[in-house]
Parts: sequence; structure tokens; C-alpha cells
Amino acid sequence: MTAPGRLTLPIETGLDDQLVGLLERLGADAVRNSDGTELPAIVGELAAKVYATYFVGRGDQEWADAHPSELTRSYLMSERTPALADGDLEIPLMAGWYALQVTPDLGCDVDRWWQVIDRTTGETLPPGTWRVSGEGADTVVTVTGAVAGHVYTVDFLAVQTWDPTQMYNYITNDWADDPSRIRESPFDVRHPATWEHVRSSLDGWLGDHPEVDVVRFTTFFYHFTLVFGPDAKERFVDWFGYSASVSVEAMEQFEEHLGYALTAEDFVDEGYYNSSFRVPTRAFRDWIDFQHRFVTDRVRQLVDAVHASGKEAMMFLGDNWIGTEPYGTLFASTGIDAVVGSVGSGATCRMISDIPGVRYTEGRLLPYFFPDVFHPGGDPVTEANASWLQARRAIVRSPLDRIGYGGYLSLALEHPDFVDRMEQIADEFRAIHDRGEGRRPASAPFRVAILNAWGRLRSWQTHMVAHALWYRQAYSYLGVLEALAGLPFEVDFLSFDDIRDGVPDGVGVLINAGALGTSFSGGSAWGAPRVQAAVRSFVAAGGGLVGVGDPTAHIDGGVTFQLADVLGVDRELGWGLSTNRPFDTVERHFITADLGAGLDVGEGTPDIVAFTRDVEVLAAGRGTVQAAASHYGEGRGVYLAGLPYSHENARLLHRALYWAAGRDSAFGEWIADDPRVEVAHYPESGQFVVLNNTDEHVRTTVRGGGDDWVVELDPYGHAWVETRELRR
Amino acid sequence: MTAPGRLTLPIETGLDDQLVGLLERLGADAVRNSDGTELPAIVGELAAKVYATYFVGRGDQEWADAHPSELTRSYLMSERTPALADGDLEIPLMAGWYALQVTPDLGCDVDRWWQVIDRTTGETLPPGTWRVSGEGADTVVTVTGAVAGHVYTVDFLAVQTWDPTQMYNYITNDWADDPSRIRESPFDVRHPATWEHVRSSLDGWLGDHPEVDVVRFTTFFYHFTLVFGPDAKERFVDWFGYSASVSVEAMEQFEEHLGYALTAEDFVDEGYYNSSFRVPTRAFRDWIDFQHRFVTDRVRQLVDAVHASGKEAMMFLGDNWIGTEPYGTLFASTGIDAVVGSVGSGATCRMISDIPGVRYTEGRLLPYFFPDVFHPGGDPVTEANASWLQARRAIVRSPLDRIGYGGYLSLALEHPDFVDRMEQIADEFRAIHDRGEGRRPASAPFRVAILNAWGRLRSWQTHMVAHALWYRQAYSYLGVLEALAGLPFEVDFLSFDDIRDGVPDGVGVLINAGALGTSFSGGSAWGAPRVQAAVRSFVAAGGGLVGVGDPTAHIDGGVTFQLADVLGVDRELGWGLSTNRPFDTVERHFITADLGAGLDVGEGTPDIVAFTRDVEVLAAGRGTVQAAASHYGEGRGVYLAGLPYSHENARLLHRALYWAAGRDSAFGEWIADDPRVEVAHYPESGQFVVLNNTDEHVRTTVRGGGDDWVVELDPYGHAWVETRELRR
Repeated sequence: MTAPGRLTLPIETGLDDQLVGLLERLGADAVRNSDGTELPAIVGELAAKVYATYFVGRGDQEWADAHPSELTRSYLMSERTPALADGDLEIPLMAGWYALQVTPDLGCDVDRWWQVIDRTTGETLPPGTWRVSGEGADTVVTVTGAVAGHVYTVDFLAVQTWDPTQMYNYITNDWADDPSRIRESPFDVRHPATWEHVRSSLDGWLGDHPEVDVVRFTTFFYHFTLVFGPDAKERFVDWFGYSASVSVEAMEQFEEHLGYALTAEDFVDEGYYNSSFRVPTRAFRDWIDFQHRFVTDRVRQLVDAVHASGKEAMMFLGDNWIGTEPYGTLFASTGIDAVVGSVGSGATCRMISDIPGVRYTEGRLLPYFFPDVFHPGGDPVTEANASWLQARRAIVRSPLDRIGYGGYLSLALEHPDFVDRMEQIADEFRAIHDRGEGRRPASAPFRVAILNAWGRLRSWQTHMVAHALWYRQAYSYLGVLEALAGLPFEVDFLSFDDIRDGVPDGVGVLINAGALGTSFSGGSAWGAPRVQAAVRSFVAAGGGLVGVGDPTAHIDGGVTFQLADVLGVDRELGWGLSTNRPFDTVERHFITADLGAGLDVGEGTPDIVAFTRDVEVLAAGRGTVQAAASHYGEGRGVYLAGLPYSHENARLLHRALYWAAGRDSAFGEWIADDPRVEVAHYPESGQFVVLNNTDEHVRTTVRGGGDDWVVELDPYGHAWVETRELRR
Repeated sequence: MTAPGRLTLPIETGLDDQLVGLLERLGADAVRNSDGTELPAIVGELAAKVYATYFVGRGDQEWADAHPSELTRSYLMSERTPALADGDLEIPLMAGWYALQVTPDLGCDVDRWWQVIDRTTGETLPPGTWRVSGEGADTVVTVTGAVAGHVYTVDFLAVQTWDPTQMYNYITNDWADDPSRIRESPFDVRHPATWEHVRSSLDGWLGDHPEVDVVRFTTFFYHFTLVFGPDAKERFVDWFGYSASVSVEAMEQFEEHLGYALTAEDFVDEGYYNSSFRVPTRAFRDWIDFQHRFVTDRVRQLVDAVHASGKEAMMFLGDNWIGTEPYGTLFASTGIDAVVGSVGSGATCRMISDIPGVRYTEGRLLPYFFPDVFHPGGDPVTEANASWLQARRAIVRSPLDRIGYGGYLSLALEHPDFVDRMEQIADEFRAIHDRGEGRRPASAPFRVAILNAWGRLRSWQTHMVAHALWYRQAYSYLGVLEALAGLPFEVDFLSFDDIRDGVPDGVGVLINAGALGTSFSGGSAWGAPRVQAAVRSFVAAGGGLVGVGDPTAHIDGGVTFQLADVLGVDRELGWGLSTNRPFDTVERHFITADLGAGLDVGEGTPDIVAFTRDVEVLAAGRGTVQAAASHYGEGRGVYLAGLPYSHENARLLHRALYWAAGRDSAFGEWIADDPRVEVAHYPESGQFVVLNNTDEHVRTTVRGGGDDWVVELDPYGHAWVETRELRR
């Protein structure tokens, strides 16, 4: 039994006689309310910290209704509308959007802030060649003099009349019949009046809630982009989207500060809305920076007020998190005490636990106590196990300070087996802290750096569209991050700017993973000779480059992969079919030594050819290379066509990184024979922990310190083992 | 039994007592020699035309050796060589090539005709920053002042010292030990002395060979690009390649005539050597045109000489065919009487039979009488059947005038079952002519046009690398051509220039098939507003667009497929993952009505999303659209992710074209229920022929003219059926 603590439980009214015993049994030292639940009156008597959710930018509909010009704006694009004949072309703006959520902003200077574009020529139509009529759902832009066979769009500013998360809850929970529930509109603190209102409302609330220890902001000012279609179903979702952070005032201030003016198209971005898969434009980077400055400044003022009231400030990493950028340069300046986020995977766990500049982090584990899982006959334990296995290996590498749950506790209590499991998980989590004594386990003698267009700003956030949701086009790359989340490496995130003058010292291997043309592969960044030369020189001098998917891809100068000479492979686009590039597959290689069945490259990458004479092809299928290894100067290059997360692929990556770094001879210490088992070694305290990442009983051997330990583990089990090493 | 004729047989010495009977039995009316065989003395007594092979540009090694400066040149690129450190970088030119076939041309002005390029910056290094040393296989270019981390290449002019086809035969047949066989170097008729020699040699030969009726040129002056690697194995092959048609003299004349100078890189093309999959540059198009003018002019002079001697001139479409361009503007001006080519498929059959401006065409059927197939225990009949099934459906649509065989007749005679089958095939072929009375069968009431960057010049030649060989990256597109080769449509080949002012009258459906960025899809051509507008207007007015693979692909303005609005689908590159594009698959559709199992899209095309609201998805797999149908104005768009050739896919295309043309209600006449059976209808003569395209017995119903005919067909069988219609 570990010392209690580090656990937050959601509570609600009506469970008063069970709460004290339950908190004690689980070792919970904090309680919280959730969306739809109230803190019970008994909360002050519990031996626990009290968290309360707080909404900054919505929930005061009276204010919103009284200040329609201060509601948050959003940039949207109409449907692409072809002109079937010369002459007038009518474009109904809202054909693709949900009119109860967003509505065209007819109050702004549309000639300045809207943009009508001939997408066939790329030209913006001058004012006077189009006109607006109608309003709301019936707003139409008529292009006069449209050219037959050309396609037109309208970029327009829209008023957000319904907060998307509240709308989602409203629709999902059928609140339309509940007179106490109204549609909440988001308002924008960029406007001084709204800001003053928000500021003073918080003061009032703080004074009214002496029982609260921690203000759990959910969250601040700008929701990530989430827009619904005419059928009220999700049409566009970008967890990193800034399209819903706009206002005329902000754009005018931007021009004043940055010295150049933004256009609607800077946000609409051909309809891609600056998805994080796009190589970011200068304007978009500047906008992020501009909003980061504004948001962190305002957050600091709110946090100051919280601190002045003797409470802590906690931020939920989600919903209205846009502009906070936890890995941004100014985040620590907010003074926020803690960040809490939903742990959907190992990578999202690291996204939270690695945030610098906060006193503590908390992971909200799955499943959420909601009726979708916690119903009679439901199986919350299985879901908890799967989630815990993903989170645990990341927690061991970079410990969250706390864990917690969310939802309706009453539902959880109807599943005693789940409560038992929760107790075990909490104990297991606390043991990591107790036995680890606050130290991280040992990692490889070199650093690993993910190289992409975003760098540090998107640490542990690559290849994400909606938070932790599976996407077919992303999972084969996301597996790299997921594997790294639990592997013994110190991981950096570098942008191309970070390496223009050379790869930073200490980095042993660069990883470049992503699809052709995306920010994660790098797109046009690879056209820069300095970038190419920096990476080639790094490898030639003994570094490693591991490429996944379309690494270094930029179609130019005779190659698709600009560093095909380093990786030993290139992607064939059809132009090079005349060149024969036969290859053999090597039977055994250090990198693939622990693979049982064939390599799983997920979606893979089509038409990968052997490019250099000396490349060793480690795996291939249907005539296309799936894995390859190359020597280059003093260093090495490794290619993988995809790396979805699996136990075997995590081991493969572990080996590939050691091989690429030229450290393969140092590999083998504190590793289990069975790739389904992972080991974390704590040399200072002379022990290691063994994690069984499966639902099966496992017996395996761990090699390290000159000894072999045979370990037996229950399904999902773990074991701490004292080594014979002396404490140093 | 049909009237004899239309058949050419290879003959050789030693079979004199069988020849007369065999020719009579098979109905052969022409005989020929082959590579490695001699015409027997008896040839003059046979009741048959006599063909003799004739080599223009090689085979006179005495001349070649005496005129080394007039040997044919070739442009080659060195290997891509990275500079691992600043300073001197040595690039061994021949590291990737076979020194017995090609050797650096050190006699030319290397500063003018060679080019050293920093592929990392794209810059050409000025003369004086590199130097050449060594010679032959040991030639090295040293770049002084190479930049660490940059990659360099040398484009160099090389002397062709060994004709690639002769080299292939030499190595394959182990002629090294045969003192009568020497390595033959190609010489270039661009040089006046060589031209005069070639011209007078032909005169001499014509006078020496009174027994010959037909001079079978194999072929003329420039071999398609075929270069071997250091291991003497094929390294680069492009059946359309012009890289081996170069000389300093020709390039100087080009500059004089065209007014601009060519560079080495105009031919090397980043190492892609202007593969026909590349969107052709202006310089490459001009070069083709320039050589076409030269080659056809010189060919005309040779043909004139042949005609003056009372003989016919026949051209073999292969080997040294570069510059002849049978679909080029000047081909008919050569006066060539006939073209013969190898029939490797339905499409290659049409490539020969559709050539305009010649008196007759001949298809050399497979298998070739060589020991690889015709050995004891070999099964030439099965191969003949497979080849005949592919060719027959094309021959019915566009009859070759003659068929023939090649190789060693003595080998064929050892397989009496093959001789029986040859007799049947010849009869079947002649019946198509006799019963068809020289008319083509009826075709659809609208024309179909393949739209790509090449247009007419590459009629029936799209997606080909080496003649009729299978390539994984090509077969899913080539299936379109193969299906069309036997379907009842008149087929045009249009370039983007041909449609800039509108799609020509009579065309009902445009087909655009190919991979992203290739000439066959069109690449940057789709960036031209006029091209987009022309196709949109064509469809809006009632035309059809059938796209296969990456149709209209050009990544710009928010879409991958520029005509995504017409096709209803787009290709997702990762930037649009934030947009939900859910779709349902329709249960039944006219286009897919005859599909038994699921649609086979071959390699398919990844990440095809439903782009328009109204698109009907006909087939999908793994969340990606495989087939879709859309309405657009008065017209229609159809998308297919790939269409490898099969009986079912040919039927699918047949239906898709009718549907796209808005003629689906007219579909159903003169079609068999079973898609493995095809029908050709001859309304003028009141009959139809039914082809069983399988090796199984088939019973099916043919509907047409208001009647149903039940037809039974043997494996590979066919049947002619008289209809009750009156002759008109």
C-alpha cells in the first residue's frame, strides 16, 4: 500500500454517506465537479482539495445577448461553386454550415474583411464585382461577371452564436426540452468591455466560493475550430485551429503591431484553414504568436486574481485552449499552477506531463464516468485496462504528478469491479512516484529529436486532428510518437529553423516522419540547401536519420526524398520507372531482430525504391521497400514506410534508433527478451520496474548489469525488482 | 476454310521439303528471315512474297571503326554524388554504366556540352570549377569547391560503342565465342559521310537481292534509350527515349533552326531523361519534332530507293524507331508501305493497326519461335491462346491487315499441336476480313477521347515504359487502354492544346487516366484556367468526364483534383483531414450492374474522399472511394481509382462511358449477358461475331435488334451469327 494522494475524484450530490470511505479507500486527495454535476454541500468537510470548473468566455448569456458585436468571430469559406455559364453566379454562404451555430457577420466592412476568390485563376475579385443579399441562413453572395467553367468561393467572417462544446453537450444530452438550459454564445475578451466584465465576474465568483481550492479553467477565450454542417453534425474539427480566434479588432491590432495586414484568405487557406498538417505560412505563425501574447497576458491577469484569493489556478488543456500554447514561449509567464488534460494515449499523456513551467500536471484517465460505458452490462474495467496500459509506459518515462477521473461518480459506484481496479491503478501510479523517488528512469546515452515544421511548439502533438482520435492517414506516423512516449529516450522537438546552423549538440538521431507535403514531413522546407546540408553533415559526422513515410520529401531536382542519398531509398512517382532498381532483402538485421511475423507498416508508403547501390533492404512487400538501412559517411540512415504503434514496432524503433546512432553495440541492457514487456531502470536506487503491456500472463528475461532476471507478470501486471547494484 | 493469305511465316534453311506444304496448309503468302536465320535458296520458288530484314544504322563495323566521331551519341548522368566535406569532390562518371556499351565523349567541347549541377541548389557550375581526368571507364570529373552536404551530378555526352539490341542478343546468345560475331556500333546518319554511306549501301544491297519483295527495315537511325549497368544488366529502358538520338551536329542544327540552344540537362532531365511519364518540356517537344523532320526526310529517301528497285518498304515498329513517330505529322510522307510490330496486348495491336498513312499493317503474334517456349515439354499453345485472346478483340475492332510469326520455324514444327492452332488462328483472322468485308463493326454513337499531355502523338502508347512489359505503377491505368482496344468505341487521343478552345465536336466522353504529376494525368496542364474551363463547359453542356487514378490532378487552390467538382471526389493529401466527408455507398448503379465480386481497382489510389454533397459512391474500401458517379450541369462525371484490365472491368468501362455520355438508356444492344463474352455487330452485312475471351465453355445470351440469341462457345471460341435484319 502506497502513501495516499495524487488522485482526483469527481463527486456529486447524493453520495454523502459513501464519500469519506471511498476517498480514504482510493487515497483520493482532491475532488471536483464535472459538466452537469454540482459539488455537494459536504465538500467542505472532506479531507481533500476542492476543484471547481470555471468558464471564462461563455455561460453568461445575458452579457452575450446584450453585446452581439462582441461575440467571438470565425472565418469560414462557402462551398466551392462552379459557374456553369457566364454571368451572375449566386453563392449561398451557409449551404455547408449550421445556421444556429454560425451566421455571416454582415455588420463588418465586407469589402475589407470578406474575400471572393476565383479558385480557377487564384485571383481575388475586386469589390464592386460581387454583392451580398439576404441574411443569416439565407445570405447569398452574387458574383457578377462570373466566367463559365471557373469555380468561386467566398471567405466570410461569421459570428459564433453557439459555443461548439456546449452545443455538442446540448444536442447529445437532449437539453432542448430543459428550460434551465440555453444556448451559450462565446464572447471575445479582445473587446475591452467584455474583458472588464470577465475580469470582474471572476472576482465575484472567487469571493462567492470560499470552499474551492483550485479553479479549474475550462478553458479560456478561444475554442479550437469545431464547426457543424447544416445537418448539425460535425463538419470541420481542428484541435489546433485558430480560425475561431478572429475579430476585426484583433486583426487591426495585428496590422498595427506587425506592420502588415491580414486577409480573410490568411485564415481560410484555400479551405484547409491552416490545419497543422499544412506547412505554416508566415502570416499564420505570426497570428499564433500574436494571439499567444494576448491570451497569455490576459490569462496571467486571471491567474493573479485567483492567487490573490488564495486559490490555485488549473487549466484544462482542451476546448478553449487556443492561444495558451503550453509549449509556447510565454506559457510559463501566465503563472498557471497546473495543467490537466485527458489521457487518450501515451503521446497525449506526454503532451501533458512534459509541459514546462507549471508546478504540477494531472491526467484525466479513461473511461469517463458516462452512461455510454457505465451502464448495466457495460465493461468499464476492460476499457480502463486498455487505457492504463497506454498511459502507464508514458507515466513511467515522464511522470504525471496526479491522475484523476471525470463524470458521474454514482455511475462508477454501480460497478464495484471497476472501483477495485481504480484502487489498484491509483496504487500503481503512486508507487511509480514513491519508488522512483522523483527521478526519471535512465535513458539512452543520446537524445532523439523529432524534426518538422512546428518544432517545440507542437511537442507530442504531431499528426493530431481531433484530440486523440484515430485517423487512417495519421496512425502510421503517430505510432512513432506513441512508441517514443514509453521508450527510454530523451525526446526533443526541433523545427527546421532550429537546425539551419547545424543540429544541436547532444542529438544522436533525427526523426522525420510524415506524409509528402505536410508540415510533419516538412514540404518545401526541404528545398532549402541549408536544411539539407545541415542534416547531411550531421549524419556524415556520425549522426542518425530515421525517416518514416515520406521523410525529407520535396519533389525537386530528380528525387522525391531530398535525402534519398542518406536514406538509401526514394519514392517513385512514375517519372523514374525507366530506371531498374532491383533489390534483395537481407535475412537478418539488428533493427528487425525482434520482429516475429512480418513488419507492420500500417498504411505504408507506395512505390519506395532502392535508391543507392549499398542500401540494405530489411523488409519489402509487393515490390516496394518497407524498411531499409544505410551507411552514410560516419553515420547512418534508416527508412520505415510506416510505424503504427504496437509492442513489436516500439521495439523496432528502439533498435532502429540505437542502430542509427551507431550505438547498436550498447543495446541490450535493461531490456526484456519479450518485446511486449518494457523495462525502466533506476540506477540511483538500484532497481527496475517491468511492465507487462499485454492482457496475457508473461514470463520473460530481463538482461542488465551483467545479470539475467527471469520475471513473471500477471496480465497488465508490473513488478519492481531490486538489482544487486550498490546505490551510488 | 477461308481464302488463303494475310499470313507471314519465318523460314530458314534445311526445311525445303516441308515448306511448300506448310505454306499451303496455313495459307501463308509471305515468308521472312529472322535475326539469326538466313532465307533458303528455295525462297524464289515459293508462291509467296519474300521479306528480308535490313539494318540501316549498324552492322557495318568497318565503317564504324573508321569513323569513330560519327558514332551515335547519348546523354547520360553520373550517379548523384554527395560531398561529405568541403573541397574537391570526385565523381566517377561510369560508376553506374557499362563501359563496353557507352564511353564518355572526351572529344567534344565538354564545357559546352557537359553540365555539372549542384542538385541541392539546382545551379549549374560554371566552367573552370570542375575538370575531367582519366578516360573510358575511369573518367572522373573533379568538382573543386564542392560544398559539404550538397549533391552533385555530371550530365555528359557519351559515345555509343555497342548497339543495345545487338548487345542484348550477343550476351543472351553467348556470341562472345563466335568469331563471326562482333560488337556492332551504331553510326549516325546526321553526319553527311555516314548518310552517303548508308544511302549507297542500300542501293548496293537492293541490287544484290532480286529475290526480295519487301525490305523489312529493323529499323532506321536511333535506338530507343536502353543502357546497361556496370553488371551488363539493363539499367535504363525507355521505349520512347530520345536520349540516344543526340550529337553535337544535331544540337547545333537545332539551335540554328529553332533559335535557341539546348543544354545537356534538356536531355538528362534530372535523371528522368524525359520519360514519357514526364510532362514534356518545350525543349523536348521541339527536339522530337526536329528529329521527326530529319528522320522522316531521310527515311523517305531510303523508301524512294526501295521503290525504285521495285520493292516494298516495311518498317518494324521497335528498336531504332526513334524519330519515325508513326502518329507524327510527317510519318505518311515517308512513303513507307507497311508497318509491322510485335503484338503484346490489345493496346499494342491497336498501336499498329490504327497507324494512318500506310497501305497495310502486320502484327507479329506471340510466341516467338525461340527455345525459351519451344523446347521439349514446352507449351506454346497455351501462350498462343492467351496472346490471341488479347489480340483478337482488338483486331475485330480495328483489323490488322496481316499477321505473322517470327523466330525459328524448325522449332515450331516440333510442336504439331501448335501448328494446328496456328492454322486455326490464321483462319479465324482471315474470317474477320472475309465476313467483315473490310468494314469496321458498329461502334457507339459518340466518340471517346483520351486526354493527356501527349495527345495524338502517343496514340495507344500511354503508360508504356518498355514495350508491353508489366509495371506495377502502370497496369492500373493501362487497363483503360486495353479495355478500349476491344470495345465498340471510336477512340481519339487529345492533348491539352487540342481542347484549349473547347472539346472537339463528336466527342461524347473525355477520359483522363494517370498518376499525379505524370503526363498522362496532365500535371501542371490542369493549372491552366482555359483547360479547366473547357472541360467544365464540355461536361456542363452534356459531355462526360471519366477520371481514373489521379485525374485532373494539380495541387492548387484547395484541391488535388482540379475538377473535383465535376468528378465528385478529391484526393486527400493530409491537409483536409479536419473536414468530415462521410459517404454511403449506393447498392446498385448502372455502371456497376455487371460486376460480380467487388470492383478490382488494381493498385488503386489512396485517400479518395467524397468531395461534393451529391456524389454517388459506387464502391469503396478502407474508407477510401474507389468508384463514384456525379451529375454536373447537363453532363456527368465518373471516377475510378484504377482499372486493371479484366473482362469485368472492360464491361464496367463500357457502361461507365455510356453513363457518362448520358446514353445509358441506349446501352444493351449487341451485348452479351456474360461480360467474358464480347460482341461485334456488322449492321451492313446483317451479322455479328461473338468472342469467348476465356478458356472456358460459355453459354450466354446476346441481345440486339429486338431479339435474343443464345450462343454457346467453346473455350477461346468465336461464332458468327446472321441476324434477321435486312442488308441495307
